[in-house]
Amino acid sequence: MAVKIGLVGTGTVGGGCLDILSNHKQDFLRHFGIDLELTRVCSRDPQAATSRGLQDIFTTDYHDVINDPDIDIVVELIGGTGVAKSVIVEALQAGKHVVTANKAIMATSGEEIMNLAEEKGLEIAFEASVGGGIPIIDPLKHSLIANRIDSIMGIVNGTTNYMLTRMDEDSLDYDAALKEAQERGFAEADPTADVDGLDAAAKIAILASIAFNSRVTMGQVYTEGIRRISPVDLANAHDSGYVVKLVAHARRGESGVDVRVHPTM
Amino acid sequence: MAVKIGLVGTGTVGGGCLDILSNHKQDFLRHFGIDLELTRVCSRDPQAATSRGLQDIFTTDYHDVINDPDIDIVVELIGGTGVAKSVIVEALQAGKHVVTANKAIMATSGEEIMNLAEEKGLEIAFEASVGGGIPIIDPLKHSLIANRIDSIMGIVNGTTNYMLTRMDEDSLDYDAALKEAQERGFAEADPTADVDGLDAAAKIAILASIAFNSRVTMGQVYTEGIRRISPVDLANAHDSGYVVKLVAHARRGESGVDVRVHPTM
Repeated sequence: MAVKIGLVGTGTVGGGCLDILSNHKQDFLRHFGIDLELTRVCSRDPQAATSRGLQDIFTTDYHDVINDPDIDIVVELIGGTGVAKSVIVEALQAGKHVVTANKAIMATSGEEIMNLAEEKGLEIAFEASVGGGIPIIDPLKHSLIANRIDSIMGIVNGTTNYMLTRMDEDSLDYDAALKEAQERGFAEADPTADVDGLDAAAKIAILASIAFNSRVTMGQVYTEGIRRISPVDLANAHDSGYVVKLVAHARRGESGVDVRVHPTM
Repeated sequence: MAVKIGLVGTGTVGGGCLDILSNHKQDFLRHFGIDLELTRVCSRDPQAATSRGLQDIFTTDYHDVINDPDIDIVVELIGGTGVAKSVIVEALQAGKHVVTANKAIMATSGEEIMNLAEEKGLEIAFEASVGGGIPIIDPLKHSLIANRIDSIMGIVNGTTNYMLTRMDEDSLDYDAALKEAQERGFAEADPTADVDGLDAAAKIAILASIAFNSRVTMGQVYTEGIRRISPVDLANAHDSGYVVKLVAHARRGESGVDVRVHPTM
């Protein structure tokens, strides 16, 4: 069986996806009888396609992907909340299954998108939006379906976790830890989404929505980041046998769902 | 949508299943629109049905479950490798989906059973056979499908893990730890399957089969249990900063798949 894929976005995540599609193509065919065929690639950056020899299937207009009648699955890896949402919604409207790693969109417009997919009888897969390579969304939706989940807690942002570890272990202050994380490519030039807890808030909103079968959006998450954490805080915690982590926590209580992100001992 | 379930086996696991079906029935209906209806219950023990008020749907003959044209899913929770396999195979032949927690059968006859299910277009679900409540089989089969897995390692037997912990922490010898585990209901009267590593071997055979898309049976697993572990071994390990665990390990190498269970520092 051939499955034709249209990929939109060729940045870090999109590039990784291109690698996997190329490296694992034979495994998929041999083990599962599925021939994954990359049919169209869309990006703002023609160089990303040329450098991989993909110029023949390259386009800068995502409509070329969505309107291609051959394509079965559209993979949206642009990120952000702008054009990415149009790609997802228009792909579903055009009858394509959609795969996305876009936590910001799923945490703000998840209900609308999931309803649209259901109405059209299509899949919207967003495992990569939370926990990277750790399966969590699909296990919550399927394997754990017979359970009543009362609480979810976890460290869901890698950038702040790296920074807090460095601040704890080597007594770096916040600015030095951020600079190092940026130099190593873990933090963006504008680190707001990570350090203010917005990335973590989007992720726990998605998990809470699934686990509690409710609709939790980012705006409903009490969110406090790590900007105000100082080496003194970490040293005090350390002396008491604790570390400080940016923990995301969702709890189902008598009075509804409580979802929060804040530094936690 | 009504889904009719026939349950075979009302022991510890079967009884837990009856509790979940009863306690979560309304949640399933409200959240997923699925009305799980327990239609037949089969057990050697009529008392198990009477004490739950299930005498009207009770039978001692599993053929009554398999031959009931209304039943969609047969849940096999007898355990062991005797009649349980007949229940699974005959249920699939009769066109029923099958759910089982039976690791011994899946580790010896898994290929035959999965082929039969595929041929009939039916599901054979065996998540509970490894790792209890931890989703591992379905994540390996689906969420992690884009990965090439080279190695799986884990502690997959609770009884021996309890015994080794007690031997380590309170310097119990093997016999005392076994006796305590039996008194607490963690170990069977005949503890062979646990202490000789057979239970762990069945589980890692199942995981290796899925992760490496190969067919690994229990007989191919190098298996060494914990009978020969003494408090001196644990004390020596402890002094070096280690503990001893019964670890199951599957690895894909140049020369094929290597699967083993043995005590590991």
